[in-house]
Amino acid sequence: MKRMISLAGIVGMLLCGVVTAAEDRPLAIAIHGGAGTIEKSKMTAEREKAYRAKLEEALAKGYAILEAGGTSLAAVTTAINVLEDSPLFNAGRGAVYTYDGTHELDASIMDGRTRQAGAVAGVSRIANPIDLAQMVMEKSPFVMLAGEGAEEFARAQGMAMVENSVFDTEHRRRQLDEAKQKLDRKGGDQASVNALPVPYRMGTVGAVALDREGNIAAGTSTGGMTAKRYGRIGDSPVIGAGTFADNDSCAVSATGHGEYFIRFSVAADICARVQYQGKTVREAAETVINDVLKPVGGTGGVIVLDAQGNVALVFNTAGMYRGSRTSSQPASVAIFGE
Amino acid sequence: MKRMISLAGIVGMLLCGVVTAAEDRPLAIAIHGGAGTIEKSKMTAEREKAYRAKLEEALAKGYAILEAGGTSLAAVTTAINVLEDSPLFNAGRGAVYTYDGTHELDASIMDGRTRQAGAVAGVSRIANPIDLAQMVMEKSPFVMLAGEGAEEFARAQGMAMVENSVFDTEHRRRQLDEAKQKLDRKGGDQASVNALPVPYRMGTVGAVALDREGNIAAGTSTGGMTAKRYGRIGDSPVIGAGTFADNDSCAVSATGHGEYFIRFSVAADICARVQYQGKTVREAAETVINDVLKPVGGTGGVIVLDAQGNVALVFNTAGMYRGSRTSSQPASVAIFGE
Repeated sequence: MKRMISLAGIVGMLLCGVVTAAEDRPLAIAIHGGAGTIEKSKMTAEREKAYRAKLEEALAKGYAILEAGGTSLAAVTTAINVLEDSPLFNAGRGAVYTYDGTHELDASIMDGRTRQAGAVAGVSRIANPIDLAQMVMEKSPFVMLAGEGAEEFARAQGMAMVENSVFDTEHRRRQLDEAKQKLDRKGGDQASVNALPVPYRMGTVGAVALDREGNIAAGTSTGGMTAKRYGRIGDSPVIGAGTFADNDSCAVSATGHGEYFIRFSVAADICARVQYQGKTVREAAETVINDVLKPVGGTGGVIVLDAQGNVALVFNTAGMYRGSRTSSQPASVAIFGE
Repeated sequence: MKRMISLAGIVGMLLCGVVTAAEDRPLAIAIHGGAGTIEKSKMTAEREKAYRAKLEEALAKGYAILEAGGTSLAAVTTAINVLEDSPLFNAGRGAVYTYDGTHELDASIMDGRTRQAGAVAGVSRIANPIDLAQMVMEKSPFVMLAGEGAEEFARAQGMAMVENSVFDTEHRRRQLDEAKQKLDRKGGDQASVNALPVPYRMGTVGAVALDREGNIAAGTSTGGMTAKRYGRIGDSPVIGAGTFADNDSCAVSATGHGEYFIRFSVAADICARVQYQGKTVREAAETVINDVLKPVGGTGGVIVLDAQGNVALVFNTAGMYRGSRTSSQPASVAIFGE
């Protein structure tokens, strides 16, 4: 009897030890809903409230997954789903219009534990492109699928198709009309797409997370650039540009002028500086966003975290819809620059 | 008179000095035509001769551009055009077949001086995809265009369209038939695409070059993977994965199992190690190809050079069609491992 109690005690102590150790491990999540010239003067109190509420909801749902012992991948997709399902952001429901008046969505996801990744580009009938990106990662031998082929894969996997018109919204249609007027005034020169104000190409959403197992993950989802043409693919579905995750360095989701983020391999470069130069995620992100991108005109921002739970939200624009929560910092959301 | 002669002499000396200095600057080009299980025992003498001749031609034409004072970008596209126009390689004329019996080609190019880049994915009517990638870089505000949209852009720029059937070849059709039989025996499981022997997904071509101005560039062109489906995009059109160039670090063109090259940001990672760890191009390439990729099953190779003219041709497969020439090393081409 004595021996049994003793054994039970030891087992109990061991279990307690394990539970405490696991609870001691840091958890973290960060999200973004696009970076750009978000001016407080042009934002109504009501609109600001709606944005904050949606960011808080995404953060809370993602963090709840982590607290319940879920994976960083699940936290990332859960948070992104909330933002995709809201018409406030340029992803899923609120996706901008292409030049031809349709919607083409891109997304990617990466698992920092295995460096497995999945990405879809130019899909038009998938309600939550981040879910399809995850399916590509988990159910195919491929990393990146595009267009109708990606949808054929989705159908083969039993994913529901939606009409492209479910992404129609009044305010995005108005942005397209304005964008096309601006383009036409410039003789339809595609180069002038670059000259469009940032709001016409902002609102990409993304998330990075760290789970109890110490694994990090990153995901990004977008409707791309208003009035985009020619099957343009931005940085969001490009692993190493808009999304990157490696337990040994960091997890990044980016938002901004995608062409610059591809050319400067922004997500991979931030993590390379962490890994090879020993920089903190904040130092690496600030260097790339402010010292590398800004001087050449590359506008945007990133959310970054590492496997120790350090988080950095960095942007070179007036504002970035963003939020974070860690096991040592309460939830906070913000829109404008500090 | 004395003064004039003296002036002419000084001018002459200055000109000589300039010319000599320019001639002293290193020139370099390296090319590849795919990496894989190229076994000497299965290669006829005639076939080997044909491969060597085509590699030598690409190298000679690319190097001639550099010697004439042309840009590294021009040398890269010229060398790649030679390989695209040959049915021996899986790019342009010799592109493999998709599962559906068509051809979908990918290419990308990057300018190390400006970090400008251009890429096309899944084009089916462009004879030389590397030329369209360059056009995207130089004539559009975009970096990456896909599918019919990319072809619409090509047409708008006046580029000639070809029938998809120009890429038909007997030996690639046979490879498709064999690949589909293998797939069918495995119940059509797409995962078994990964199990296909390397020859079914090899033959991507690429080039890197250093010009007299000290600028480096990289380009890659491919027909992708035999029997690919679902609009699969490999690493070749992904900047940072299959192609990368930055004067401050290095230029890389990759060939191999594309999914691994995307997940491990191979081209950008090699250059990050050069830039942040002070590694030579050879050390960085060998670490990534042999120590990072090989243990996880990522087969393939890279050609790399830096702005000082150091060249490395590194692969973890039995062979890689390859060649290089620099101002200090005569032209050499090779196929098998040493």
